[in-house]
Amino acid sequence: MNRSAEVICVGTELLLGEVLNSNAQFLGQELARLGIPHFYQTVVGDNPTRIKRAIAIACQRSNLLIFTGGLGPTPDDLTTETLADFFQVPLVEHPEVLEDIARKFAQRRRDPSPSNDKQALLPKAAAILPNPIGSAPGMIWQPLPELTILTFPGVPKEFHLMWQETAAPYLESQGWVTAQIYNRVLRFWDIPESTLADQVAPLLALTNPTVAPYASRGEARLRISTRTSSADIADQVIAPVEQQIRQICGLHCYGTDEDTLESVVGDLLQQKGQTLAVAESCTGGELGHRITRVSGSSDYFLGGVIAYANSVKQSLLNVKSKDLEQQGAVSKIVAEQMAVGVRSQLQSTWGVSITGISGPEGGTEAKPVGLVYIGLAGPNSVHSFERKISPLRGRGWIRRMSSSFALDFLRRQLLSHPA
Amino acid sequence: MNRSAEVICVGTELLLGEVLNSNAQFLGQELARLGIPHFYQTVVGDNPTRIKRAIAIACQRSNLLIFTGGLGPTPDDLTTETLADFFQVPLVEHPEVLEDIARKFAQRRRDPSPSNDKQALLPKAAAILPNPIGSAPGMIWQPLPELTILTFPGVPKEFHLMWQETAAPYLESQGWVTAQIYNRVLRFWDIPESTLADQVAPLLALTNPTVAPYASRGEARLRISTRTSSADIADQVIAPVEQQIRQICGLHCYGTDEDTLESVVGDLLQQKGQTLAVAESCTGGELGHRITRVSGSSDYFLGGVIAYANSVKQSLLNVKSKDLEQQGAVSKIVAEQMAVGVRSQLQSTWGVSITGISGPEGGTEAKPVGLVYIGLAGPNSVHSFERKISPLRGRGWIRRMSSSFALDFLRRQLLSHPA
Repeated sequence: MNRSAEVICVGTELLLGEVLNSNAQFLGQELARLGIPHFYQTVVGDNPTRIKRAIAIACQRSNLLIFTGGLGPTPDDLTTETLADFFQVPLVEHPEVLEDIARKFAQRRRDPSPSNDKQALLPKAAAILPNPIGSAPGMIWQPLPELTILTFPGVPKEFHLMWQETAAPYLESQGWVTAQIYNRVLRFWDIPESTLADQVAPLLALTNPTVAPYASRGEARLRISTRTSSADIADQVIAPVEQQIRQICGLHCYGTDEDTLESVVGDLLQQKGQTLAVAESCTGGELGHRITRVSGSSDYFLGGVIAYANSVKQSLLNVKSKDLEQQGAVSKIVAEQMAVGVRSQLQSTWGVSITGISGPEGGTEAKPVGLVYIGLAGPNSVHSFERKISPLRGRGWIRRMSSSFALDFLRRQLLSHPA
Repeated sequence: MNRSAEVICVGTELLLGEVLNSNAQFLGQELARLGIPHFYQTVVGDNPTRIKRAIAIACQRSNLLIFTGGLGPTPDDLTTETLADFFQVPLVEHPEVLEDIARKFAQRRRDPSPSNDKQALLPKAAAILPNPIGSAPGMIWQPLPELTILTFPGVPKEFHLMWQETAAPYLESQGWVTAQIYNRVLRFWDIPESTLADQVAPLLALTNPTVAPYASRGEARLRISTRTSSADIADQVIAPVEQQIRQICGLHCYGTDEDTLESVVGDLLQQKGQTLAVAESCTGGELGHRITRVSGSSDYFLGGVIAYANSVKQSLLNVKSKDLEQQGAVSKIVAEQMAVGVRSQLQSTWGVSITGISGPEGGTEAKPVGLVYIGLAGPNSVHSFERKISPLRGRGWIRRMSSSFALDFLRRQLLSHPA
């Protein structure tokens, strides 16, 4: 049998659709990145008979079985004991796991419960796959000479850390990783996926690297991929194509890979030694929340005012009551006054504001749900612009798009002003 | 064989993790809602040999096979022809499908390509499962007396419409929908899943309703489920068990089903006709953002101050510079002054504040990363409390937990004050 991996996700909550199976997606991406073939994924509930049937089928066609879920402390967490039972190997208690669980609970000033004890049981000869943050360790186990089993808890954050810190290096050490796929993702704002694909159409026909467009959370992306043996070679293949795309797309391309609009804005402010304050109405704090997701944002972000009620726009941001009455809270002039007001109150280099109608109530014919004004006050000028965001995807979408437009507006201003 | 369904999602893009498998989640929810048992889900790539192996396995254990994906016009869309080949039934062209495709392309002012022709091919005796918006129809087919196959395109919007308009009514007409499963989810804050499971241990052994614990995003939940024919009967079965759980767990249980801490706090403020303002340091706007996710929150939420820099704590919230210097920004007294300050500035009934160290930098031995103070100023008193949140899960987690603790603190205060 050629080497191939198979994913088995255990949990009745997955079958009931209570949880979206993001773990299967993560594993798909990771196995592809490492060049490990992977042909099947199975989801099965918390039922030992059916888990055993899934194991029996998977053993016939794959030699690396990766389990997620079913490692918790409760009686319906059955993955470990069912695997041991299937291969008829006894469970052994690992005192170091018990100690680790006790230590983690102590940090939270809590006591482990008796049900946590079973998390220290692993099949004889299985190795602990350490969980740096949660109570459930996984395992690395070879129950048969040509069969490797890895288990992970279902909690994505724990699973990802365990994969990156232990499982991926283990697979590499065992010769599973032959060639890697290297990707660079270019991220775009304010251009639809289809327009972007048309603009770079000739590049979509390349075979090395490949260029593929996709869209996620309102932004278009291009993934440039190559399969090779080192990051240096990958860069030589990818960089010239990235350069071509950037020349074609200009400022629409805001970053690569892990960049976000908020991290890119943060880098620019950091470079210029400038500061930022925000005034938010319909986004209610989302813009500030996004900016401060970036570690180190206290270097340039001073804070802001959530001016949800009109009274707060007046009292804390000096928006004129005449303009609120005549133009309404959702207007160009109020957006500008909010930006000027927060900049002056917090004494920042830049003040950014958002006022809009996020719905589902509150729209009118003249000012429909999705209408948003962004204001920007800087050292030399005050700007604002209007956007009409489609109301079809709902309130959360309108708010998210509004905060993205505000960040992008600031990004373009920062790029057009020499340092 | 008892009747049960099985989900088979076809697509190499799913195995590569390029697409999150939301179709499997949708089907899980729908099958649960209709009371159709469903024990396995399989994902397989665009490969006829492996698709046939998946069909062979699924036929052995289930009698309703639901396929998503692989109905498109391109050569790697193989679901229909592979099914026909597996059951050795010829494909037949359906002129009405060709006409429908031509009409849909004409609406978009485009011509169908020759590759669309294959979308009109279905196995002999299969019925068309109409696609109201896309070019790919699905099928309803009984290749064997005790086996029903449904196919759907992978595009979620098309799939959902086809399911709701045709497939679900068809299954009901064929007697698949006998009884529905009714769930009620109880949501808890500030109690670990294992402690909760221990407290309600005897109830976890019930068979009707069943009670199952699980955890998500830092909160524990209990799902109470019963399988019955009407919502009224379900309520009679579920309500007494819910009552028992609430008696055992008291205020730890904050809500049910779609409730969130922010919606529950919003309902309480709405009932009392009271208003809220927030002062946020380390959460940077997340608390306000969460509160305003609730549609209608403008009835009780006035706004707030994001006091990320100490200068803002002083200038907008009247925090005393002496206390900032002597106790530090992350301290009980500063949390209390922030809450009092925002309440007084915005003239709200309640002021809630958060100040803490979200890391990864900025921790000390005395004030480690994860240390958070929550302040609450109300009509009669000022309170605060300290929390140490585990730093292991990172900055985003600490901020999320901090805003949840703040909402829960307010919830408990609102419940302890008679209206």
